[in-house]
Amino acid sequence: MPEIIIYAVAGRTTEQKRGLVKDMTEAMVKNFGVPAEAVTIQIVESDKDSKAKGGVLFSER
Amino acid sequence: MPEIIIYAVAGRTTEQKRGLVKDMTEAMVKNFGVPAEAVTIQIVESDKDSKAKGGVLFSER
Amino acid sequence: MPEIIIYAVAGRTTEQKRGLVKDMTEAMVKNFGVPAEAVTIQIVESDKDSKAKGGVLFSER
Amino acid sequence: MPEIIIYAVAGRTTEQKRGLVKDMTEAMVKNFGVPAEAVTIQIVESDKDSKAKGGVLFSER
Amino acid sequence: MPEIIIYAVAGRTTEQKRGLVKDMTEAMVKNFGVPAEAVTIQIVESDKDSKAKGGVLFSER
Amino acid sequence: MPEIIIYAVAGRTTEQKRGLVKDMTEAMVKNFGVPAEAVTIQIVESDKDSKAKGGVLFSER
Repeated sequence: MPEIIIYAVAGRTTEQKRGLVKDMTEAMVKNFGVPAEAVTIQIVESDKDSKAKGGVLFSER
Repeated sequence: MPEIIIYAVAGRTTEQKRGLVKDMTEAMVKNFGVPAEAVTIQIVESDKDSKAKGGVLFSER
Repeated sequence: MPEIIIYAVAGRTTEQKRGLVKDMTEAMVKNFGVPAEAVTIQIVESDKDSKAKGGVLFSER
Repeated sequence: MPEIIIYAVAGRTTEQKRGLVKDMTEAMVKNFGVPAEAVTIQIVESDKDSKAKGGVLFSER
Repeated sequence: MPEIIIYAVAGRTTEQKRGLVKDMTEAMVKNFGVPAEAVTIQIVESDKDSKAKGGVLFSER
Repeated sequence: MPEIIIYAVAGRTTEQKRGLVKDMTEAMVKNFGVPAEAVTIQIVESDKDSKAKGGVLFSER
């Protein structure tokens, strides 16, 4: 409300995630005018052999 | 058809999931008039440090 | 928290949607033990020529 | 089972979509060994001012 | 890579979306260390009668 | 651009995934006329007790 889903390769640290969700929530509050508590974010991580770009798995790029 | 995706923090038991998918499928059949076999549900679980509300990770709330 | 996304062909009435979100929220509260206010649901509708089963668009099945 | 969601800018023709869902379903059957009827695909289209790359809306790129 | 999907009620202006995707992309670059051009964002909008919180459609809250 | 998300039960081999993302990317290039490098695919896998059809978990079907 809004809900944000981030699809990423696994491997980021908790510190990276902490910074990301803080900054993204602020971006949502600033631009869409919603209260911070209304913003939920989920990072959906997959292994490198479950994600591809250009038809090639990230485990093989 | 319809497909339901549920984004949740990891940690629910199989019993909880069994009940949820049963009740959700019934809700879909009752309200949207589709056959139960047409309803698929996937629960996408993330660790507490990959989900946030109000700009704060669930691992730190 | 949890967030539910429902992918469906467009065309349901507001009455159908009203019943669905009520029943689905109750299913979540009952089985996952979350407060109703924590449950958000979004129905993502596409036209029949943007959805397929068995490799055939719903507009042509 | 599996379910495929394709996020794209709006504007493709029905003919383009017809070809895509046919070929994608065949790719799923061939590689994952599932029956074609088990494959559902939904194309979620957004206008050019609701999609961005590199921080710039497609309506302004 | 990462891909960001934002589920929201329809009705934001292009100016609001322009600011959001710019700030979100910067948050991703800063925290996850990816190039801006690798970040795609799609805002998936639904009408108020297709989104609910607490079991009640936004069109009726 | 487009982004493809595939929701599946866990358990496919890297060889199966390698073939799938190659064929799906080719299907996208052929039908939607986009360059291969613009196509990203993420396979979101869940355990059998987190996915259901017909109201029954795959771990119990």
